[in-house]
Amino acid sequence: MPKISLKGQQMPESPIRKLVPYAEEAKKRGINVYHLNIGQPDIETPEAALKAVRENDIKVLSYARSEGSETYRKKLSKYYREHNIDVNEHDIVVTTGGSEALLFALGSITDFGDEIIIPEPFYANYNGFSVANGIKVVPIVSTIDNDFALPAIDGFEKLISEKTKAILICNPGNPTGYLYSKEELKKLRDLAVKHDLFLIADEVYREFVYEGIQHHSILSLDGLDEHGIVIDSVSKRYSMCGARIGCIVSKNKELIQTALKYAQARLSSPTYALLASEAALETPKEYFDAVIEEYDERRMILINALKKIEGLKVSKPKGAFYCIAELPVKDADHFAQWMLESFSDQNETVMVAPASGFYSTEGSGKNQIRIAYVLKKESLIRSVELLKLALEQYPD
Amino acid sequence: MPKISLKGQQMPESPIRKLVPYAEEAKKRGINVYHLNIGQPDIETPEAALKAVRENDIKVLSYARSEGSETYRKKLSKYYREHNIDVNEHDIVVTTGGSEALLFALGSITDFGDEIIIPEPFYANYNGFSVANGIKVVPIVSTIDNDFALPAIDGFEKLISEKTKAILICNPGNPTGYLYSKEELKKLRDLAVKHDLFLIADEVYREFVYEGIQHHSILSLDGLDEHGIVIDSVSKRYSMCGARIGCIVSKNKELIQTALKYAQARLSSPTYALLASEAALETPKEYFDAVIEEYDERRMILINALKKIEGLKVSKPKGAFYCIAELPVKDADHFAQWMLESFSDQNETVMVAPASGFYSTEGSGKNQIRIAYVLKKESLIRSVELLKLALEQYPD
Ligand SMILES: Cc1ncc(COP(=O)(O)O)c(C=O)c1O
Ligand SMILES: Cc1ncc(COP(=O)(O)O)c(C=O)c1O
Repeated sequence: MPKISLKGQQMPESPIRKLVPYAEEAKKRGINVYHLNIGQPDIETPEAALKAVRENDIKVLSYARSEGSETYRKKLSKYYREHNIDVNEHDIVVTTGGSEALLFALGSITDFGDEIIIPEPFYANYNGFSVANGIKVVPIVSTIDNDFALPAIDGFEKLISEKTKAILICNPGNPTGYLYSKEELKKLRDLAVKHDLFLIADEVYREFVYEGIQHHSILSLDGLDEHGIVIDSVSKRYSMCGARIGCIVSKNKELIQTALKYAQARLSSPTYALLASEAALETPKEYFDAVIEEYDERRMILINALKKIEGLKVSKPKGAFYCIAELPVKDADHFAQWMLESFSDQNETVMVAPASGFYSTEGSGKNQIRIAYVLKKESLIRSVELLKLALEQYPD
Repeated sequence: MPKISLKGQQMPESPIRKLVPYAEEAKKRGINVYHLNIGQPDIETPEAALKAVRENDIKVLSYARSEGSETYRKKLSKYYREHNIDVNEHDIVVTTGGSEALLFALGSITDFGDEIIIPEPFYANYNGFSVANGIKVVPIVSTIDNDFALPAIDGFEKLISEKTKAILICNPGNPTGYLYSKEELKKLRDLAVKHDLFLIADEVYREFVYEGIQHHSILSLDGLDEHGIVIDSVSKRYSMCGARIGCIVSKNKELIQTALKYAQARLSSPTYALLASEAALETPKEYFDAVIEEYDERRMILINALKKIEGLKVSKPKGAFYCIAELPVKDADHFAQWMLESFSDQNETVMVAPASGFYSTEGSGKNQIRIAYVLKKESLIRSVELLKLALEQYPD
């Protein structure tokens, strides 16, 4: 029997997916499961985007231009300029989701055996894209005790080797909700420039910031034209995860040309989704105001309720729609599974994402979970209540 | 300035895209360009597929299940069983186009430095997916003199090394139009089994066969359960290239599990396109009958017209909608560019794909072009007339 490759074996299983069979079993037993485990918002997609697809008059559903149409890229660059990111249509390659943007960016700048440094905990699929590219993730630990702020720069410097090609950050962060300050970003910039590394910023949650704090894109800083790569996506911004449209943004011409070759090899991004994404750019400010207010309220309700649970430590997120909570249990993987398998209250239980999957250092985050506040407030309140009951009953 | 990777540099530019700027220039000069260069059919997408999207009632455009919904995979497996391919929903991972299916399949079975054997000329993007996976394409030459039939098996055997992981064929072939006989496929099967290699068959043109000949899927043969991998796509079948839906089909459980991990890392295929693809499965037989009759007529008109050009040799395609023509010129790349830059007749010219991009052996196919018969008959006739005039006037 022919063998799967080593790489194929090393591809991580999605940490979120591992629990899915247990959730399905619970549902079969008639249990209502609250899903705090996934970043799939319940917010409605802007009507303009939905309408553009419903009212399309396509007769031949053709390939789109590999890098996205000039019109779309022009409109996108206008959006970026409005967000203090001075780019034009030539600085953008449209991709099939932020996922593909990550795959192409890593493929463009790394060779087999190269390394990238990522503050952990980090978005779990960075592992998958790294394995797919045959490169190694070198984690640098950030900690719940200061809400997962940027680790000290000399910690980064110690990890930089001949093989290091880039530093990858997520801002605001999934799973941490941390929002980097301008000062932190400047430190990263100086480090990247000093060691001639790429600085990749995954900014797919750019709009989701709270407490009146401003988000700073790495491309709004001076001096990153050659080093900065932004990963972006319409998935969260317009609550249209199923569109599968994202992009790579960079002023580095070689990088854009190389990403374009990757884009050409896969021909095209999805045409209907491009229609929706272009129309979504017309989304009025009021939409975002309302959505962000909604998330902010959920955030406060969630954090305040979590804080009341004895022995639980939670980091207060300033952006995105996730937070990490440290539980008074030894093994959050086991606890999460137990909540689905053996716990329920009035036929209800809750599904969370064990945080171990967001760490690359073996054994880290074992007692942490990630909570996504993508549910309505009442559901969040009930979910935390269930979590509290479960912790009380858990026979650790 | 940080550097692009070696891999990034090695990513091939699309051979079709190279000429695009010249075509755009020609259009700016008011020249009408007939596009024989791309596999983008002008055939209308089935109404059922278009309608499913127009009449969708999506409010939150959510991620789809990474491997495609169970419903869709069940319906797909029914389609396969009707085509003599005995699989079920667990043997399928839905992908974002045949392109992604190729990327995932190669990623699942190869490691850095591994090799795959492909009869050349072959679909140019096999190169891109190979470079992306850090593997080497080992070509085996097939020739226009026997319409690009399967090269002798001992030729394959000579190329098999420790590093060989798979043989990849395209059936029917792009760019050759060649349709493998059952005997040829059996030879490949025996070879794959003997050397414990995967046999990957890109069957995205399955429906497009002429002269009453039957298409045989590798998965319709006995003995390939562990070794056979089929690459598929809705792009050409339903003339919905812009959907970006395809799949991997295999009875090898490990392969499917590994492909699924790749699918999980990128989360989801495009949701609107999944709606269209599921609905497209209801396309009545009459649609295909009409489409195939149309392509067949174009094929005959094209081949007969080409044969009348002195010094031109053409292989008669039995499937897909491409053919390779050998021209009485030294350098078809230059000739194709010249037709766009310096030639026109009554303000019209024609764009073809130089075949060199479909060969991996340096210098091969230099005097060949690929013609896609995706235009209406009158346009095809006029295109060949232009090609003839151009050859007469070309100052080689
Ligand atoms: C931090 C981060 N980056 C990238 C992605 C990829 O999203 P998509 O491929 O839907 O754009 C996600 C999705 O959850 C994410 O959380
Ligand atoms: C032989 C072959 N395989 C795969 C593809 C990829 O097509 P898609 O990604 O649109 O399914 C093509 C497209 O032209 C092709 O010709």
